[in-house]
Amino acid sequence: MSNRISNNMGADDTDNTSLHSLPLGPEELPYVHKVGVPPKPKLLKEITDTLKETFLPDDPLRPFKKQPRRRKLVLGLQTVFPILEWGRDYNLSKFKGDLIAGLTIASLCIPQDIGYSKLAHLDPQFGLYSSFIPPLIYAFMGSSRDIAIGPVAVVSLLLGTLLQDEIDPVKNKLEYQRLAFTATFFAGVTQATLGFFRLGFLIDFLSHAAIVGFMAGAAITIALQQLKGLLGIKKFTTKTDIISVMKSVFGAVHHGWNWQTILIGVSFLVFLLFAKYIGKKNRKLFWIPAIAPLLSVIISTFFVYITHAERDGVQIVRHIKQGVNPSSVDKIYFTGDYLVKGFRIGVVAGMIALTEAVAIGRTFASMKDYQIDGNKEMVALGTMNIVGSMTSCYVATGSFSRSAVNYMAGCCSAVSNIVMSAVVLLTLVVITPLFYYTPNAILASIIISAVLGLIDLDAVVLIWKIDKFDFVACMGAFFGVVFASVEVGLLIAVSISFAKILLQVTRPRTAALGRIPRTSVYRNLQQYPEATRVPGVLIIRVDSAIYFSNSNYIKERILRWILDEEETLAEHKQPGIQSLVLDMSPVTDIDTSGIQALEELYRSLQKKSIQLNLANPGQVVHDKLHASEFANLLGEDKIFLRVADAIVMCAPKLEQV
Amino acid sequence: MSNRISNNMGADDTDNTSLHSLPLGPEELPYVHKVGVPPKPKLLKEITDTLKETFLPDDPLRPFKKQPRRRKLVLGLQTVFPILEWGRDYNLSKFKGDLIAGLTIASLCIPQDIGYSKLAHLDPQFGLYSSFIPPLIYAFMGSSRDIAIGPVAVVSLLLGTLLQDEIDPVKNKLEYQRLAFTATFFAGVTQATLGFFRLGFLIDFLSHAAIVGFMAGAAITIALQQLKGLLGIKKFTTKTDIISVMKSVFGAVHHGWNWQTILIGVSFLVFLLFAKYIGKKNRKLFWIPAIAPLLSVIISTFFVYITHAERDGVQIVRHIKQGVNPSSVDKIYFTGDYLVKGFRIGVVAGMIALTEAVAIGRTFASMKDYQIDGNKEMVALGTMNIVGSMTSCYVATGSFSRSAVNYMAGCCSAVSNIVMSAVVLLTLVVITPLFYYTPNAILASIIISAVLGLIDLDAVVLIWKIDKFDFVACMGAFFGVVFASVEVGLLIAVSISFAKILLQVTRPRTAALGRIPRTSVYRNLQQYPEATRVPGVLIIRVDSAIYFSNSNYIKERILRWILDEEETLAEHKQPGIQSLVLDMSPVTDIDTSGIQALEELYRSLQKKSIQLNLANPGQVVHDKLHASEFANLLGEDKIFLRVADAIVMCAPKLEQV
Repeated sequence: MSNRISNNMGADDTDNTSLHSLPLGPEELPYVHKVGVPPKPKLLKEITDTLKETFLPDDPLRPFKKQPRRRKLVLGLQTVFPILEWGRDYNLSKFKGDLIAGLTIASLCIPQDIGYSKLAHLDPQFGLYSSFIPPLIYAFMGSSRDIAIGPVAVVSLLLGTLLQDEIDPVKNKLEYQRLAFTATFFAGVTQATLGFFRLGFLIDFLSHAAIVGFMAGAAITIALQQLKGLLGIKKFTTKTDIISVMKSVFGAVHHGWNWQTILIGVSFLVFLLFAKYIGKKNRKLFWIPAIAPLLSVIISTFFVYITHAERDGVQIVRHIKQGVNPSSVDKIYFTGDYLVKGFRIGVVAGMIALTEAVAIGRTFASMKDYQIDGNKEMVALGTMNIVGSMTSCYVATGSFSRSAVNYMAGCCSAVSNIVMSAVVLLTLVVITPLFYYTPNAILASIIISAVLGLIDLDAVVLIWKIDKFDFVACMGAFFGVVFASVEVGLLIAVSISFAKILLQVTRPRTAALGRIPRTSVYRNLQQYPEATRVPGVLIIRVDSAIYFSNSNYIKERILRWILDEEETLAEHKQPGIQSLVLDMSPVTDIDTSGIQALEELYRSLQKKSIQLNLANPGQVVHDKLHASEFANLLGEDKIFLRVADAIVMCAPKLEQV
Repeated sequence: MSNRISNNMGADDTDNTSLHSLPLGPEELPYVHKVGVPPKPKLLKEITDTLKETFLPDDPLRPFKKQPRRRKLVLGLQTVFPILEWGRDYNLSKFKGDLIAGLTIASLCIPQDIGYSKLAHLDPQFGLYSSFIPPLIYAFMGSSRDIAIGPVAVVSLLLGTLLQDEIDPVKNKLEYQRLAFTATFFAGVTQATLGFFRLGFLIDFLSHAAIVGFMAGAAITIALQQLKGLLGIKKFTTKTDIISVMKSVFGAVHHGWNWQTILIGVSFLVFLLFAKYIGKKNRKLFWIPAIAPLLSVIISTFFVYITHAERDGVQIVRHIKQGVNPSSVDKIYFTGDYLVKGFRIGVVAGMIALTEAVAIGRTFASMKDYQIDGNKEMVALGTMNIVGSMTSCYVATGSFSRSAVNYMAGCCSAVSNIVMSAVVLLTLVVITPLFYYTPNAILASIIISAVLGLIDLDAVVLIWKIDKFDFVACMGAFFGVVFASVEVGLLIAVSISFAKILLQVTRPRTAALGRIPRTSVYRNLQQYPEATRVPGVLIIRVDSAIYFSNSNYIKERILRWILDEEETLAEHKQPGIQSLVLDMSPVTDIDTSGIQALEELYRSLQKKSIQLNLANPGQVVHDKLHASEFANLLGEDKIFLRVADAIVMCAPKLEQV
């Protein structure tokens, strides 16, 4: 396979006549290595390799190889229930960490749950239900050690908005609940299906930048919604855009604001933000912001109870249904019109919930340096939501704020979720009546202080610095959510993300190369202004696979490079171009349209008497050049290992280094 | 800008201590050139450059530069009406060529037009109308010299299928016609808009392979539809899939087939195919297949007229409305439900028509080596269809078969279209009554022999050889059209084309590199089995821009490369990996998610005590590495111009070539 078209500086004498004629001394004669043509893989192997790389890039069956049958069964069970694996090494010292972390996130989640269920237009107990069953399931099936499971602000808002468009949550309460469970069921099915069929990469199509913008927009929207509770306004818009909300708020200035409510709400908001500030300043005091919400609830509830502020118009939570989750299997719509609607809402909510959970899982896994399997994780989250939908829960996922607290409180495993779940169970069975006098304002304060953490200004600044297109996606999603609605923001985010991908594949970069002084390396002339052009030779690098989506553009762009170069040369009264060298290093693949474009380019160049040369085609490209006979048309001797070798042939008089 | 981190083999002494410690003799000490950091372009310039490259890659304003105002006006007019440009050099010898070509394509188009309008479920005169006005408009505005404009088989079939789904063409003839004009209007608007906003690249998203499959499938479908006319069947299915058609055909065996019709149809089909064969064998006899259809029509019409075969059940064309195109401005639906439907159908038909016309334009332009401006071409086609929709024409575009005849007959400019248009006008005004006795069977034979040319078996074989994925797209589109419907086939073609793009950006290739013996070039170990690994160093090349859609995959794939390599090394009891060199040559861009992935990779490697090095980042990537501070985190001295330089630092003991 390893042919040498040129001389062998070692034992053999050069016998290549075309090289003999070159005016190069033997010490300058470079070693020219042939482009590699390994044996072509069998078709079936090629296909299975591609499929494997697409769907099983993490090689999940690796540990099963060369194992006895019994061991394979154990490994299989451990794959589905990772608790069987890490549970065997579990010990008391780990439990101590998990216990503290579990209690901390429980104290944080109880008031949040009650508030978030309001965002989803559901009764408070449904939030608590969703913090009981789903975390339990996740603890057995999930592979992240740090994630804290439960209802989260953004998904609650999204679900509330989408469901409200279909059914009025006040007038048709029961139907609304049923549709919520239906959506939760299909959210779970979507998640589990994506994981099972290893299509997890689909969520990668929502770009990081778009998520940052979407989250920030959702945070602002959620905070604005809380003005209702914080100011004690009774009549409030059902829309979520900033203009409608502001109209609602200022329309209610004279007769709708309740100063007692504002007093309670604002003072506790200040307290919560101060607690957050302390936690940020000193990382060891992380428990202060973690415990502050529950503390606020206790104090404010007690305060309302003794002053009977509810008589002065301070709105309170009142009744929360006591007891564990009732079954909701019979409430899910499996037929009819609402099945379709529930499915649609479920898919959207499930994808967003997944995006959030996977992002959290990855972040903490890379901080503690363990691997999490995205697809396995999706199956776990999906199962948890399917079971949840049958036990009166709505869509649960990993929460940013609570996972961070979990991590800082020293959690060691998913046992902290079990602890939290146990505490929530206790709350449901025993202490829900104690929340009767809890003012709504305090819940609003807690939610505002929680969602402010979703606004990541540093990330926005970094995005601006790194990639302007990403910044547009980020801002598009942000303004879409704030000024229109959650769905519009999401749609903008997805569209811009896709537009970026399409732009990338339609308009790849091309660059003219020059020789870096005193080397035989050829690089972009724009990046290396000190590089020199080779007289009579134009060297162009194509920075992308050549596919149908860009083959025409690439062909025409190369012809334009030639036109530009010839114009410049003519201006300086220099001779024209004799050779074009295409550096194919970044061309990782080519398809039929690409080959066609190359052929057209070749013919156009022939008419201009310019010789086409290719440098460093990769394996796949080289195979296809041969399969299509283009290599024969061009001439095998016009394909080189590197640009320098091509230059030796094109411009033999040029001094070589 | 051009820094050198290493020694200068020339005048200066080396003063770099880290290099002093390397055990390399001065003759082995390679010249290490710094990665180029040109001044960052201004933000505004960056944005305008990107926009220009996306929408104006062909630099259409180039000729306007440095011109006086008056000249600019002339150039502007010439841009819109290219006839003003080439018309000035027009002469008699060119007209001779165009006259012959125009007469030839006219003789071919008249019978085809009558047949194709049947495919679109429209009366025969509408096909003739569409060969009169649109070619005239195109001749003034179009830039292709070889294209022959008129109704084409595939678009007629597509339009017929889509329109039939909305309105019954027999029962509601007038509404059907009105919807057809509405669709034509919006097809024109779509085409002109795409061209005007320079979004022509959108049609590049339908891959060549998908088009080949789609065209072949459409050809089969159209040929099958002609069995109705060829066999003289009266009751025929309105579906287009092969199964329904075959049921219809064989269901009519005993009482529906008409032997006189079959005799006429089949004998002339044989004649037409033989004429085609002669034309293919001897390219100079191209006029034989070109004239054969009209000849068949004349002979068979005469034959039916004298034998009165129509009394024996041979179906004939009967009445064709005489006279030029009536206005249809008031027939277009500008309001109501049909507006939306017409718009939808128009967009689809317009895109397909565009794809066909642009492909033809490009093919012949590259054969005669002139440039056509895709966007300008779309404006011309769009205008022609808009005007057409107001003059009782349906969607016209460039025809493959007639353009080829046009080219071979020696056309020199769009004047051949004007000639054809004049002949069609004459036909409409004078000789339509002569078509009264033309048997439908002859039209069926003409269409079958025409569409068989759309089946490009050679292209299919080539696609199979070059790219298996393309072959799947091709077959998917083909079977979709044949077994389901034109829309399904189209949908499959577009979906597979998109799936390919998405696959490309989600699962890019990575490769381990080794050193090619006796060079300092590092290449894919799989492609060059003779290349050698560098002990203690793993060199990985990432073959794609790193974007949000693949950043995670790339990170995890690289970690898996390390895992695999370490396993192999452990098996052979060799020391582990100390350094990872990432060859960034093909990484043309990186976004925020990509930078994040690199950071995560860096941290994971740190925990494994593996040093990360980057080789040859491009300009954009290098800028972003700096903007994000990742370059500082990694260390500026870990970024190298090429892999060989990185290896010098990582494995200093390795002998250098």
